[in-house]
Order: sequence, then structure tokens, then C-alpha cells
Amino acid sequence: MTFMEMLKSAWKKSGSLLCVGLDPDLEKIPEFLRGEKNPLFRFNKAIIDATKDQVCAYKPQAAYYAGLSADEDLKMTIDYIHEAAPGIPVILDAKRGDIGATTKMYVKEAFERYQADAVTVNPYMGMDAVKPFLDRADKGVIVLCRTSNPGAKEIQELDVAGEPLYQHVARQVSTVWNFNGNVMLVAGATFPEELGRIRWIIGDTPLLVPGVGAQGGDVKAVLENGKTADGTGLVINSSRGIIYASSGRDFAEASGEAARKLNETINSYR
Amino acid sequence: MTFMEMLKSAWKKSGSLLCVGLDPDLEKIPEFLRGEKNPLFRFNKAIIDATKDQVCAYKPQAAYYAGLSADEDLKMTIDYIHEAAPGIPVILDAKRGDIGATTKMYVKEAFERYQADAVTVNPYMGMDAVKPFLDRADKGVIVLCRTSNPGAKEIQELDVAGEPLYQHVARQVSTVWNFNGNVMLVAGATFPEELGRIRWIIGDTPLLVPGVGAQGGDVKAVLENGKTADGTGLVINSSRGIIYASSGRDFAEASGEAARKLNETINSYR
Repeated sequence: MTFMEMLKSAWKKSGSLLCVGLDPDLEKIPEFLRGEKNPLFRFNKAIIDATKDQVCAYKPQAAYYAGLSADEDLKMTIDYIHEAAPGIPVILDAKRGDIGATTKMYVKEAFERYQADAVTVNPYMGMDAVKPFLDRADKGVIVLCRTSNPGAKEIQELDVAGEPLYQHVARQVSTVWNFNGNVMLVAGATFPEELGRIRWIIGDTPLLVPGVGAQGGDVKAVLENGKTADGTGLVINSSRGIIYASSGRDFAEASGEAARKLNETINSYR
Repeated sequence: MTFMEMLKSAWKKSGSLLCVGLDPDLEKIPEFLRGEKNPLFRFNKAIIDATKDQVCAYKPQAAYYAGLSADEDLKMTIDYIHEAAPGIPVILDAKRGDIGATTKMYVKEAFERYQADAVTVNPYMGMDAVKPFLDRADKGVIVLCRTSNPGAKEIQELDVAGEPLYQHVARQVSTVWNFNGNVMLVAGATFPEELGRIRWIIGDTPLLVPGVGAQGGDVKAVLENGKTADGTGLVINSSRGIIYASSGRDFAEASGEAARKLNETINSYR
């Protein structure tokens, strides 16, 4: 099954557009876990067990593992998702992209070493810099378009022949780069109007939408601007709002409850 | 000593503008090393020993280690450079960039975990996405501007208010982003004319120039277009042309000889 088939099937089976971002920070996970072996994995495992019926995807953020030399925790986390939540795709949020020969090594990292189903990539270097990813028809390639950070507009809204750069990127990526039908785009929840323009440009190409929760994105506006005619087309990510719902021994239960509530809110606007 | 001070001092002491790219591919290193423990480190160590008097910097490419789960080899390599070639800065080529909270973890990765002196970053997400790097006045932040890959122009030469995007990035990064004086830009040797325009825009800000050697960049044109008035301002990277100069038992000696020759060619145009 390709990533795109997995995603569509996960939307249907779970009835959810929610993606939980697995960005565990050793300073923020419950204290009693910090002294354990593989604390990030142990944290993630409990979150996965508590949320797996509420999500259409998981998105571990590579930086949180790379920064703490916790590569093993990342691998264990992805393996565990495949085992405990089969059919739920794993998006490795790594924002890769380099000259072709080098990108081939990042392909190995994402799809062989970590067994992710999709990966985020950066469009600045052009299509040939992500082509080794695009060539993998079985995997998903999620290209940054309009990101959720406050300073995103500095480059992404530069005027290119009468339209902002991110709209040009949206058109180029959803057509030319999408020769294998395996492309998604990133559009931040913090800029729902821009998200709406992207949806208009890209047709039914799915969007990964970070920025709900801690970053302040509005769920109603995301759905109104971003959903496709069948009420899907979105992978709405929340990290901190779910995984840090409680810092006590009930953290997993609290994350499950936070996921359920966010899911309910999302679905009320579908 | 800051990265910029290290670099200037290394230019002077070594009399070289050459950077050796440490991108070891297990399928390309000499066969007799492949079965050893930490083969990538053993390969790099021999290359470092043979080239350390010929270079102003080393640039390990993160992908080659990430793809093979050889994180330990990367760490050993950087540690060894600091030990065997003190004063020669290490650039971790990782092309990072993410929302601020996440980039902080990439700062840990580059500067704590791996003890690099500088890191390459991608500008697409805007300044706030690399600010945790820029805030480290002691470290170097090397921003992609006009990359060396064939498809670089697809995004980087889009017309932004009468100039190509990469020129806008060059101006913005060398002024606004450079509040700590720790910024460099990437300009590929494969596009020497564009490199010249960047030099004109950024004054004496140093350039990292990949693409000499296997990618076909012309050394003479790079120097003519890129050097500053004092004959420096450039960190000219060669990876494959140096590290794979021979695939036999003489690979290290051959890499030293290749570095010496390239250095001589570079210096003939300073």
C-alpha cells in the first residue's frame, strides 16, 4: 500500500483528520520518565497507546531526537507505531533537501533507517534536490509551502510575477513535482486565508497543517479554507497541545482526552 | 575564538581557501575498509591526516552519516579534526531550518552533540526559523543562496521585484540576518556569474562555494567572481574530487596530492 492509499484509508477508518506530533522534549516530559532508559520512546509509546484510535497519522519531528542523540528512541517510536497502529502512516518531519547524490542518502535515512511512510522537504533548491524522494511512488513527499512560523512571509510572500512565492510553489509542486501522485504541501493553520488560496490552486492534493494548538491556529478557519469536497484533504497536526496535556502520571490519559476533544472540534466543521 | 575568527586565522595560516567535504559513501570507500569497525571514521581520519595542512575548513555532509546510522562516525570525525587539526573550523552541512522551538534542538545537534563550528541552513522559512542559530555569535551560520545543483534556478531565480530571488536573499541575509556578524552564504561554483552578483551585493561576507570538481565548477571563474580584495572571502569545497582521488590502498596519499594540486590551482588565481 502506498502512503497516499494508507492516508485515505486512515482518514476513513479513524474518522479523523488529526495527526499527533511526537516532539518529546526531555525537559517537558513527566519527571518520573526522565531517568528511565529510552525516556522519549517510553513517553511516545504511552501517547501512541492513548491516541491511536483518534488519529490519521503520527509526525515525529527529527530535531527532537537528533538534538538529544536519541536516534534509537526515534526508531523505536516508528517501529512501535507500525506494530501497535498498523495502517496509520508515519510522517518524518525532517525538512530535507540537498543536491541529488546527497538526497539519496536522506532517502535511506527516512525510508530504510527509520521506515517512515512520508517525509517533509524544503523546496528552495528546486525539484532535482528532492527528486530522489519524489521518485519513491510508494512514499509521501510533503513540501513546505506556507509555513506556520511568524516570519514565514519574509521569503514565502515575496511577489513573484504578481503572486506570492508560496502560491507559485503550490502550483509548481502540485503539478510538475507531483508526477507520481505522492506529493502533499505544508500550509500553516496560523494563516488560514493563505491556506485557502493554496487549496484553490492545488485542487485535491492533501495538506499537512501544523500550527493548531500551541501556535494558535484556528480549527474552524482551517476546515473552512482547507477541506476538500468530501470533507478530507487535511492532516491537521497538533504536538504540544496533545502530548503535554498533563505533566503528571496521567499524561497519556490526558493526551488521549485532548486528542478526542480536538478531533471532535475538527469533525464539527467537516 | 569565534567561527569567523577561526576561519580568518585558518585562511592565513594554511594559505588555503580549500575546504574538503567529508561525504564518505560505504560503496565508494576502499574495499579493505568496509569491513572494519567505524569504516567511515577510519576513512575520514586518513583523509584528514593527509590533507590537514592544505585546507581552511572541513565540511562533513550530515546525510552520509544519517543514511547509514553512522552518527558515531560523524562525531568521531569532528572530534578528530578538533584534535589533529586545531584551529581548522568544521562546517556541518545539514541545511537545517524549522520553527523556532524546533530549531533550538537542531542547535543542540550541531553545536553540542557534534561540536561543529558552523552549520548550513535553508532560508525558505524566514529569519525566525534560523534565529536560534544566528543568536550563537560564536558559531557560523551559512545560508543557502544560489546552490550548485542543476535545478537551482527553478525557485532561486524567480523574479522578485526586478531581481532574482537569490539576490534578494543575499541582500537580506548579509544585512538583516547578520546582526552578529556570523553569517556566510552558499553560492555554487557551477554558476560563477551568479556568484559574482552575490559578491557585489554582500561586500566582504564570506562565501561557501560547493561544486568544484565532480560537479564541474570552474576554479578560475570562481576566484575572479568571488574573491574579496585581500584574496580571501571564499571557502571552496571539493568532496568527491579529493576523497575519491584513488580507490586503492593509496587513497589517503592520493587525496593529499589532489588537495595540494587543487590548492595550487586556486592560489594561482588569487
